[in-house]
Amino acid sequence: MSSNVNRQFRLKSRPVGKIKTSDFDLVEEPVPTPGPGEAVIRNLYLSLDPTNRIWMSDMDQYMPPVEIGAVMRGGGIGKVVASNSDAYKVGDTVSGLLGWQDYYVAGPNDEIPVGVLPPELPVGLPTMLGACGLTGLTAYFGLLELGQPKAGDTVVVSAAAGAVGSVVGQIAKLNGCRAVGIAGGPDKCKWIVEELGFDAAVDYKAPDWREQLEAVTPDGIDVNFENVGGEIMEAVMARMNLFSRMPLCGMISGYNTDEPMRGDFSPILMRRINVRGFIVTDFLEKYAEATMELATWVATGKIKSQETIVEGLENAPTAVNKLFEGENLGKLVVKIADE
Amino acid sequence: MSSNVNRQFRLKSRPVGKIKTSDFDLVEEPVPTPGPGEAVIRNLYLSLDPTNRIWMSDMDQYMPPVEIGAVMRGGGIGKVVASNSDAYKVGDTVSGLLGWQDYYVAGPNDEIPVGVLPPELPVGLPTMLGACGLTGLTAYFGLLELGQPKAGDTVVVSAAAGAVGSVVGQIAKLNGCRAVGIAGGPDKCKWIVEELGFDAAVDYKAPDWREQLEAVTPDGIDVNFENVGGEIMEAVMARMNLFSRMPLCGMISGYNTDEPMRGDFSPILMRRINVRGFIVTDFLEKYAEATMELATWVATGKIKSQETIVEGLENAPTAVNKLFEGENLGKLVVKIADE
Repeated sequence: MSSNVNRQFRLKSRPVGKIKTSDFDLVEEPVPTPGPGEAVIRNLYLSLDPTNRIWMSDMDQYMPPVEIGAVMRGGGIGKVVASNSDAYKVGDTVSGLLGWQDYYVAGPNDEIPVGVLPPELPVGLPTMLGACGLTGLTAYFGLLELGQPKAGDTVVVSAAAGAVGSVVGQIAKLNGCRAVGIAGGPDKCKWIVEELGFDAAVDYKAPDWREQLEAVTPDGIDVNFENVGGEIMEAVMARMNLFSRMPLCGMISGYNTDEPMRGDFSPILMRRINVRGFIVTDFLEKYAEATMELATWVATGKIKSQETIVEGLENAPTAVNKLFEGENLGKLVVKIADE
Repeated sequence: MSSNVNRQFRLKSRPVGKIKTSDFDLVEEPVPTPGPGEAVIRNLYLSLDPTNRIWMSDMDQYMPPVEIGAVMRGGGIGKVVASNSDAYKVGDTVSGLLGWQDYYVAGPNDEIPVGVLPPELPVGLPTMLGACGLTGLTAYFGLLELGQPKAGDTVVVSAAAGAVGSVVGQIAKLNGCRAVGIAGGPDKCKWIVEELGFDAAVDYKAPDWREQLEAVTPDGIDVNFENVGGEIMEAVMARMNLFSRMPLCGMISGYNTDEPMRGDFSPILMRRINVRGFIVTDFLEKYAEATMELATWVATGKIKSQETIVEGLENAPTAVNKLFEGENLGKLVVKIADE
């Protein structure tokens, strides 16, 4: 698992539209050595997320954009290979914003500290980035804290075959709700219903997707877990019930454009919808408890975890586009090195 | 105050754009007599509200639209002139959906019962439609229940010289907030600051209104009480703080069009704004307590009440357009008959 260079993707220019490999410089640095209080981490898995695209842009966002020339920001899991820090010992498995690179230097100046995972994990490392990681926590808090689902409610989630959406629908089912997923293509639709247990799926690539949505939400929609924005969001909002809830997790359909992500506000007014934007870190103080619950659900088969794994750090820039083209099932992960 | 006919504005066609008198038939019916359990009410004051325009249309809305041929729906205050009902006695002052007409027949089949006002009122009847009526309650619940203002917060309200907005800013001040009003023209801006005690005003008719908004919200915006929608809403949302609140009371800029009332959703996501649509009737069970508090504030001069009174039922269709052209200060009321 060791490498004698540290490959780094540094942001060269802010992408216009689809991300291109040429938006990055792939540079080779020497493998770092730890300074006082620091530890060197060999990155193993890189989490690819829609928010990567936001960080590459200079749009209004919830963390500073990645600066031109800086290593691309990204979450990941790795192993400590050298340490001068009391917080990390060689062999520890860690999780944090390790970046699009082979090695990360963790230390007291980290804005968000890298966390040490327990030595015995009930699930594999990619799942610790997916259903049992920030992705699963995003689904968990967005649905349960903001969506406030009650048994019998109809919960609709877009990007339902994606990392967050696939978990949202499964948690909705655990709470006695009717889970409806919106996904692209018959294969994904079949997968979320037959494998994950959603009650129904809407294929947004089918010409009759609006009629499909109407047919599978006969009692309207009580919770819309929104991941995509655009015309799908508007069609869902048009069917939302009085006093329904809309956790706004993302609007992936707009991330590749410079246009404002507009939508119709009138259902919010007329149906008294409660719309709340959120980021998983808003619920930081509840991570431990929620992670335990998610891990139990996965370990006992109540929630199925799914990862799409792309081999090789060098493929990160092209792989991230899969998120916007809907080419991944579940969590999209880049494998950087063997465990 | 009696009249020997009952003039009624019946909706003839759904207005396109601005409301025209020709969108109504003005018919004369005999003065009604009460059937068993009914009471006849002489209408005195008619409340004109942006929601009248919504009811004239067949857009998605929170009550059924007024049917073609039906008497135009509207709130009002009147006096009972004949009664076969135990609920109403001759001479009672009442408030309810009395309609655009001289007389209303109240009875057990009313969908929303007409309410009897106390015999001794601390304020005049037009104020009972304004700061101490549904208008004031709209400001009260939207700001205090949904806006959750804390001392020191910056509260922005659009249509600030209007019936609801003028009360919102004053309640914000009572709660120790910085109150910023957006209004049209220097006279209204001067009025809300000098007469009502707002901290600052933004004149949206001035070419530099965006710069004005920036200048008077140096610490961003914690509560946006939204009344207008459109580009003003977007400009305000662009300055909203992390975890800020946005009670969505109305979007008057869009009511004269058939277009969806679109706006940018990205600040909701990035700034984790809580947007909540509401209608005053959502808080029905708290009316009594809130009305008492509003009446006390008005009676003790803590809140200034302002009405614009148009004389004559016949002028209702043209008067309602004042709301959309910003020609009213405070509550817009039509006087139908002498008290």
